[in-house]
Amino acid sequence: MQSESVQLLGEFIGTFVLILLGNGVVCGVVLRKTKASDAGWMVITLGWGLAVMIAVYVSGFMGPAHLNPAVTLAMAATGSFSWSMVIPFIIAQMLGAMLASLVLWLFYYPHWAETKDPDSILGTFSTAPAIRHNPSNFFGEFIGTALLIIALLAFGQNKLADGQTPTLVGGIVTAIGLSLGATTGYAINPARDWGPRIMHSILPIKNKGKSGWDYAWIPLLGPLLGGVCGGLLFDSIIKFVAHH
Amino acid sequence: MQSESVQLLGEFIGTFVLILLGNGVVCGVVLRKTKASDAGWMVITLGWGLAVMIAVYVSGFMGPAHLNPAVTLAMAATGSFSWSMVIPFIIAQMLGAMLASLVLWLFYYPHWAETKDPDSILGTFSTAPAIRHNPSNFFGEFIGTALLIIALLAFGQNKLADGQTPTLVGGIVTAIGLSLGATTGYAINPARDWGPRIMHSILPIKNKGKSGWDYAWIPLLGPLLGGVCGGLLFDSIIKFVAHH
Amino acid sequence: MQSESVQLLGEFIGTFVLILLGNGVVCGVVLRKTKASDAGWMVITLGWGLAVMIAVYVSGFMGPAHLNPAVTLAMAATGSFSWSMVIPFIIAQMLGAMLASLVLWLFYYPHWAETKDPDSILGTFSTAPAIRHNPSNFFGEFIGTALLIIALLAFGQNKLADGQTPTLVGGIVTAIGLSLGATTGYAINPARDWGPRIMHSILPIKNKGKSGWDYAWIPLLGPLLGGVCGGLLFDSIIKFVAHH
Amino acid sequence: MQSESVQLLGEFIGTFVLILLGNGVVCGVVLRKTKASDAGWMVITLGWGLAVMIAVYVSGFMGPAHLNPAVTLAMAATGSFSWSMVIPFIIAQMLGAMLASLVLWLFYYPHWAETKDPDSILGTFSTAPAIRHNPSNFFGEFIGTALLIIALLAFGQNKLADGQTPTLVGGIVTAIGLSLGATTGYAINPARDWGPRIMHSILPIKNKGKSGWDYAWIPLLGPLLGGVCGGLLFDSIIKFVAHH
Repeated sequence: MQSESVQLLGEFIGTFVLILLGNGVVCGVVLRKTKASDAGWMVITLGWGLAVMIAVYVSGFMGPAHLNPAVTLAMAATGSFSWSMVIPFIIAQMLGAMLASLVLWLFYYPHWAETKDPDSILGTFSTAPAIRHNPSNFFGEFIGTALLIIALLAFGQNKLADGQTPTLVGGIVTAIGLSLGATTGYAINPARDWGPRIMHSILPIKNKGKSGWDYAWIPLLGPLLGGVCGGLLFDSIIKFVAHH
Repeated sequence: MQSESVQLLGEFIGTFVLILLGNGVVCGVVLRKTKASDAGWMVITLGWGLAVMIAVYVSGFMGPAHLNPAVTLAMAATGSFSWSMVIPFIIAQMLGAMLASLVLWLFYYPHWAETKDPDSILGTFSTAPAIRHNPSNFFGEFIGTALLIIALLAFGQNKLADGQTPTLVGGIVTAIGLSLGATTGYAINPARDWGPRIMHSILPIKNKGKSGWDYAWIPLLGPLLGGVCGGLLFDSIIKFVAHH
Repeated sequence: MQSESVQLLGEFIGTFVLILLGNGVVCGVVLRKTKASDAGWMVITLGWGLAVMIAVYVSGFMGPAHLNPAVTLAMAATGSFSWSMVIPFIIAQMLGAMLASLVLWLFYYPHWAETKDPDSILGTFSTAPAIRHNPSNFFGEFIGTALLIIALLAFGQNKLADGQTPTLVGGIVTAIGLSLGATTGYAINPARDWGPRIMHSILPIKNKGKSGWDYAWIPLLGPLLGGVCGGLLFDSIIKFVAHH
Repeated sequence: MQSESVQLLGEFIGTFVLILLGNGVVCGVVLRKTKASDAGWMVITLGWGLAVMIAVYVSGFMGPAHLNPAVTLAMAATGSFSWSMVIPFIIAQMLGAMLASLVLWLFYYPHWAETKDPDSILGTFSTAPAIRHNPSNFFGEFIGTALLIIALLAFGQNKLADGQTPTLVGGIVTAIGLSLGATTGYAINPARDWGPRIMHSILPIKNKGKSGWDYAWIPLLGPLLGGVCGGLLFDSIIKFVAHH
């Protein structure tokens, strides 16, 4: 196993790549006067899926490539990850996500001025629900993340080819985006939502409005709770299988 | 081989995931005021393909991952699955599909009220033909399911890499959706149609209309008969190959 | 190696599946009142790519899975396939393509009456150029098929995983469709064009017009000549590599 | 290892295929009266991704398949490629790209006359920014290419299946296109931009305008510098991992 510092570097770099590519595709579709303006949901969901896949290939040789506090917490809750590393991992993930938001701000620099709608600009940083409805929005983030964790753990029960896992991780994230992403924008990862949201608060972005902190508890608690419940549910399935 | 109870749990969980993701993408595209409204046929067909792929990875370590009464019946008819397990498998599949419909109703809760067309709402549960024409609709479900079974059996004749089969299963379902799905909406799986249709009848969904039971015999009998005929045809091909 | 009769059955079944799925996606997009009407170029090109991939998985255990007279001729011209089997293979491929066209006519039965434009109907059977320009159209089919053969032969020079080749074949056909398909509709396979075109002439299809036989020499000779030239060019590359 | 002449042939053929398919998809979408006119960003980005994937499979058995001066320079800068071969490789890459542009001009011959906008025509040869903004455009090409090199080097740190690498290379190029391509059109490869731009200057293309040489330094220096910096950064990561 890699040392703790290498693992933390892996989380930092991997989450940086994840948000650079993931929020990058949202910027391309949502910001005005890009070559991808209004390119649609297929572009966004495949872009996010490939973002996760690439991020795991890039960082997986340095550690477990959680790249997501909900994954880290679920792994700790199910006993396959040390509790003492949970906070350091989450910090590394948050820092990677924040740096990616800074780079994207520079990358798309002339396009912020062309985009007059503050909600669109916030949408290139953090998630917002299609219809604000707290129980349904919370349930959406909960279910999406629970399914993510169940799938990640189930992949480990299959005999896979070398190098296949990151591709499957990209597949489940594309699937969640297509099928369960259209209501809340599928944060399913608190670092993906909070890291960029903090940067939206800080950076002097043209045409930006409020940072939507009144909604932020949902993409924080929904994924964390959904991930832990998904992990515990899968654990009980594994125990059932082992005893029958 | 896993015990019967583990296999039944696998069918239940796998079909749950299949319908959660599969009908989930239809909800995203068809319901109003989602982020994927009217996102198109590519989104729906790829979403269903990935739904099947993920469902097989998630449930395949617990059993054969039929997730479809037409597959179960075809496997029994060709002698590779025990007749005594056919009814229990179908019940587990139906229950998984019904639970998924319940979860999706909650997941998309505020969007039912925004969607005024009862046919759209029924379309997020069960299938309906683009043009009602009983012989052509029946033939469509028959051919689609026959090809599904032939492809599944043919995959088994190839030397594949570890972990490749579920991806190929997702590929054939995407292919059937793209190429043979645009007339009836490709049920090709009675549990996929009847499970959600039952829930459509029961649940107090806003703006819902009739549940289309007059059409329901087609996505029931078409897939069952098509699956059995596809299986028997493939068996005869294998015998021809073995004797020549 | 499989017997000749098994190989011919493989060509028949494989080309049937190829055209059923390949022309099936064109029907879905081009015919009126389907669920995929006007779904676009991404749907068509991915549908054709998956059609080829599935067809090769389904028929590859019975023989070489050429499924294309241009491939058969190129393999004979480069010495890796027996000349005596060229005509039988092409006949099997043509019969498979013709049967698929018959099935698709029944599959989409009520939609022919809804589609008033005879060119659209012909387009669901055989290819037609976006702009008729004989030298450019011929060059297009020639280059597309030459690249197809070069890629197929080059795949064989790579060390691949078990079961990977049919997926790559689907990949090159998707790539050719996306990049070199928008001028002539990329027949790159005389059986894909002539088999359905013959059926278009014969079948009593509602709203059909002429079968475009004045153009048909291009998707016949372009692919055959392109395939042979691509095969011979690749052979000379291999000889260069072996001697340097 | 292959001889130098074989490697150079590989770079020539591979870059030819890369630009034939890559610029081919742009022609299909941007030129008028093709079957793919205005087919959108998903078509372009997937077309480029498959173009790279196919090009690497076709040329990878002849050499390292850089197909990109930025890759060649980065490999030399990080000590894994001989400096003496840098100029010959770049010449071979440029010649392959130029030949591909010539073939595409003939391939799409009747469509140039139908396309009245000179900027569209230039866009089928070389890149142009959505908004001209030198620092942001340069930064875009720099970051995109740096990430490309980091991903390529990181793939090598994963235990992969036989034949998987070219597919992953196609994946990272698709991902960069989707997420980081919408501002400058993601040259991320000087041969991809300069080879076709030279041909645009030379060829007697209908409706062509100026060749945009005032912008050309950005898709030259951005990728070269980004590639070298990405390579050196990854080297330092590897050293950090090795020492901790």
